[in-house]
Amino acid sequence: METGDKQMLVDLTDLGKRARVAGRRLVAMTTDEKNAALLAIADALETHSATILTENAQDIEAARTKGLSDALLDRLLLTEARIKALATATRDVVALPDPVGEVIEGSLRPNGLRLVRRRTPIGVLGVIYEARPNVTVDIATLSLKTGNAVILRGGSETLRSNVALVEVIRSALSESDVPLDAVQIITSSDRALVAELLRLDTYVDMIIPRGGPGLHRLCRETSTIPVITGGIGICHLYVEPSADLERAVDVIINAKTQRPSVCNSLDTLLVHHQIAESFLPKVAAALAAHTTKSGATMELRATGDAWRILSDASEAGQVGGADVVQAGAEDFDQEWLSLILGVKVVQGLEEAIEHIQEHSTFHSDGILSNDSAAITRFVDAIDSAAVFVNASTRFNDGGEFGLGAEVAVSTQKLHARGPMGLRELTTYKWIAYGDMHVRK
Amino acid sequence: METGDKQMLVDLTDLGKRARVAGRRLVAMTTDEKNAALLAIADALETHSATILTENAQDIEAARTKGLSDALLDRLLLTEARIKALATATRDVVALPDPVGEVIEGSLRPNGLRLVRRRTPIGVLGVIYEARPNVTVDIATLSLKTGNAVILRGGSETLRSNVALVEVIRSALSESDVPLDAVQIITSSDRALVAELLRLDTYVDMIIPRGGPGLHRLCRETSTIPVITGGIGICHLYVEPSADLERAVDVIINAKTQRPSVCNSLDTLLVHHQIAESFLPKVAAALAAHTTKSGATMELRATGDAWRILSDASEAGQVGGADVVQAGAEDFDQEWLSLILGVKVVQGLEEAIEHIQEHSTFHSDGILSNDSAAITRFVDAIDSAAVFVNASTRFNDGGEFGLGAEVAVSTQKLHARGPMGLRELTTYKWIAYGDMHVRK
Repeated sequence: METGDKQMLVDLTDLGKRARVAGRRLVAMTTDEKNAALLAIADALETHSATILTENAQDIEAARTKGLSDALLDRLLLTEARIKALATATRDVVALPDPVGEVIEGSLRPNGLRLVRRRTPIGVLGVIYEARPNVTVDIATLSLKTGNAVILRGGSETLRSNVALVEVIRSALSESDVPLDAVQIITSSDRALVAELLRLDTYVDMIIPRGGPGLHRLCRETSTIPVITGGIGICHLYVEPSADLERAVDVIINAKTQRPSVCNSLDTLLVHHQIAESFLPKVAAALAAHTTKSGATMELRATGDAWRILSDASEAGQVGGADVVQAGAEDFDQEWLSLILGVKVVQGLEEAIEHIQEHSTFHSDGILSNDSAAITRFVDAIDSAAVFVNASTRFNDGGEFGLGAEVAVSTQKLHARGPMGLRELTTYKWIAYGDMHVRK
Repeated sequence: METGDKQMLVDLTDLGKRARVAGRRLVAMTTDEKNAALLAIADALETHSATILTENAQDIEAARTKGLSDALLDRLLLTEARIKALATATRDVVALPDPVGEVIEGSLRPNGLRLVRRRTPIGVLGVIYEARPNVTVDIATLSLKTGNAVILRGGSETLRSNVALVEVIRSALSESDVPLDAVQIITSSDRALVAELLRLDTYVDMIIPRGGPGLHRLCRETSTIPVITGGIGICHLYVEPSADLERAVDVIINAKTQRPSVCNSLDTLLVHHQIAESFLPKVAAALAAHTTKSGATMELRATGDAWRILSDASEAGQVGGADVVQAGAEDFDQEWLSLILGVKVVQGLEEAIEHIQEHSTFHSDGILSNDSAAITRFVDAIDSAAVFVNASTRFNDGGEFGLGAEVAVSTQKLHARGPMGLRELTTYKWIAYGDMHVRK
C-alpha cells in the first residue's frame, strides 16, 4: 500500500463533496438497504482479515521501533480474534433499531395543516480519533446505520490498519446499494489536515472528537462546524451520614478502581464531617486492600480535615498500603485516570454541591445517602450530564444506559448530553402537509 | 443615564461569573417562582414606561440625526402602546407550559438501576441581536421562563432603550426570588465585546445570534461556544403538473408577498416543463396584480425556458406590471428579502430536488403536487429544516407550528432545527437511582 504517495493526494474539499453527495443518497435509504451493507461489511472483514493483519503488522512494527510501551502496542494490535469481534460487533449493529424515520411528534394545527417532526440523518460526520483501530469500524458502521456519511481521521500510529479497514469496508459497499463514499478516511497523518477538516463547514455537519483534552480544545477553538465535546470527567461522590456506609465503600471502590483509566471513574470523594473520622480510614483501607491485590498502589490526595484524619490513620497503620499525600491547590481540578483519589471533608450538602459546581466537568457526579430531602436537593442542584444516587459513576455509559451503542460521551449542553447512541447521530426535520394552505 | 461612563466599565468576565452564579440558582427554581418574577416584570414595564420612552426618544433622536430611514426608525420606536404589548407578551409567557423538569424518558435497567432523562435549563445564554428593542424583553422573559441566565447584546441604535428595559426588568427581579443577574446586558456598543463574548466559554453555554449572514458567519468563525445558526432562508417551491394549479398560484403569492422581508418568504419558483408555458405567465400576472396594489413592483429573475416564456408573455402584455429580468449566475443563491423571485423550468422531480440541494439554505422548501409518489420522494430527499407539501413556506414559524413562542429559526443540524421554542432553550440530564449499585 503506497501510503506515502497517498499522503500527497489528500484533497479534503473533494472528500467533502463526495461525502455530501453520498449523504444525500443515504438520507432516503431504507433500513433494509443499510443493514444489507452492514452484513456485507461484516463478511468482508472476515474474508480479508489477512490483508488487514499484514497492514497492522507494519503499524505495530513501526510503533515498536518508536519505542511505544507494550500496553500501548496492545491497544494498536489487531488479531484474527479481534477482527472476528469487529465482524460480530458489525452484525450487532444490524440488530439495533434504526432511529431514522421515527416520528418524534405530530399534530394537526387549528388551520388543518398536518405537522410531523421526523428523525433524519445529520448528513456528514467528521470523526477525529486516536490509537485503537477498532474505532474505525465502530464509527463507520454506526454512521452508516444512521444514514450519515463519515470522514474518518484516525491516529497516525494505526494509519495503515485504518486505511486497510476502510478499503475492506468500501469493497463491501461497492457491492451494496450504499454509495462508496459513505465511508472515507483521510489517508495522511499530516496534522494540518485536521485543522482543514474542522473548517470544512460547507460539507461537514458535525465533528466528533474522541481523544484527550487537547484535541477537544483544538476543536472548540478552531472548528467552524458544530462540535460534540466531552469525554473529560472529573467525577465526584458525596457521602452522607444517612448512607449505608458499608455498601457505600463498595460503590467507592467500584467507581475508583473498576477501570481507573476511563472518564467516568471517580476523581474526588467528598465526605460529611460527622462521619469522616470513622469512614475515611475504612475507605482508605478498603481501597488499599482492593488495589494492592494487583500490585498497584492507591494514592489519596487529601486536604484539611481529610488530610489530618487520613495521615493519622496512616501512621496508626490503619490504611493498608495506601499512600496518603497532602493535596495541592490544583488537585481537585484533575481528571486522574489512575489510582489517585482526591479526598475532602465537607460541612454538609450545600458545601458538597458548591465544591462540585466549582470543580466538576459535569460528566458524572453522585450522592450516597438515605435522606430523601438531601437526594432531591442534590439531584436538582447538580447539573451534570449524569447524576447518580446510590450508584457508581461507572454507569455513565451507552451500554449501561441501554442505548445499544456508544459513539461518545458528551459533556456539553447542546444536542446531546451524556452517552451518545444512534439516536444522537440523527437530527429531525419538520414536514407540513397542507391543502394549499396560505398563512393569514 | 450615563451610558458613556458605563461603556468604560464593561467587564465581561464579571458578567459571565454573575450569570453562572445566577444560572446555578435558576436551575433548581420552581415554575411558580419564575412566573411570579415574569408577572412582576410585566407590571414594572407598565409602571416605568415613561422612563423607557424617555431613553427611547434619545435613541430615536440619535438615529434620525444619523439619517436612518423612516422604516428603520419605526422599528426602533417604542410607544406607550408598544410597551403595553410587551407587558402583555410577558404575561403570555407566564401562561406557556414550563418545559423544565419534564421527564423525557425513563427506564428500569435489567440490574435494577432506575434511569430518568430529565429536561433542565441550558445554563447561561448569550444572545446577540440587532435593532428592535422588543427583542430585549422577548429574550429576557423566554430565558427566565426556561431557567436560563442570559447576557444580552443588542444593537447600538437602541442601546439606551435596551439598557432602560433591562434596568426595569432587574428592578422587578430584585423584588422576586429570581436572582438579579439572571438578566444582564452589555452596556457598551464596542464591537470588540462581541468577539469577547463569543469566547467566554467558561461561563456561557450557548450563543444565539439574531441578525444577518455576517453576524452568523462571525459567530461560526470565532465562537468557542456552541452557536445556533440559522435565520437565512433561500426558500423554494416546486410546482408539478398534478397540482391544483389555480390554488397553487395563491400559495405562491402568499409565500412571496405576504411578508417579503422575512426568512421564510419564497425566493425561487421551480416549475415542471409540461406546465411552464401556461402556468408561468399566470403566476407572473397574479403576482403583479397582487403587488402593484401596494404600489410595489414584482421582479421575476428567470433563466432558460422560464426567461423565454416570461419575456414573451411580458412582450404580449400578459404579466401585468411585473418586471421580467434574465437571471444571472448567482441569482439562485440569493435570499431576496424583497419582491424579487427567481424562476426556473425543470424537467421533473429529480431536477427540482437537485436544484434545491444545490441552492437551498435548507430553511423552508416545498412541493405543490397531487402525486403521492412524487410527494413522498420529495419529502424523503429534501433535507430542509421544514419541508412543505401543498402549503406556503411562510408557515415555518414557532407560532404557526404551535410552539407558543419563537426564539430563533435554526438551519443547523445539531440541537434544534427549524423554529425554536421554549423546549429548545433546554437540555437534559440523566439521573440514575440505585441501591448502592456497582458496575460489573
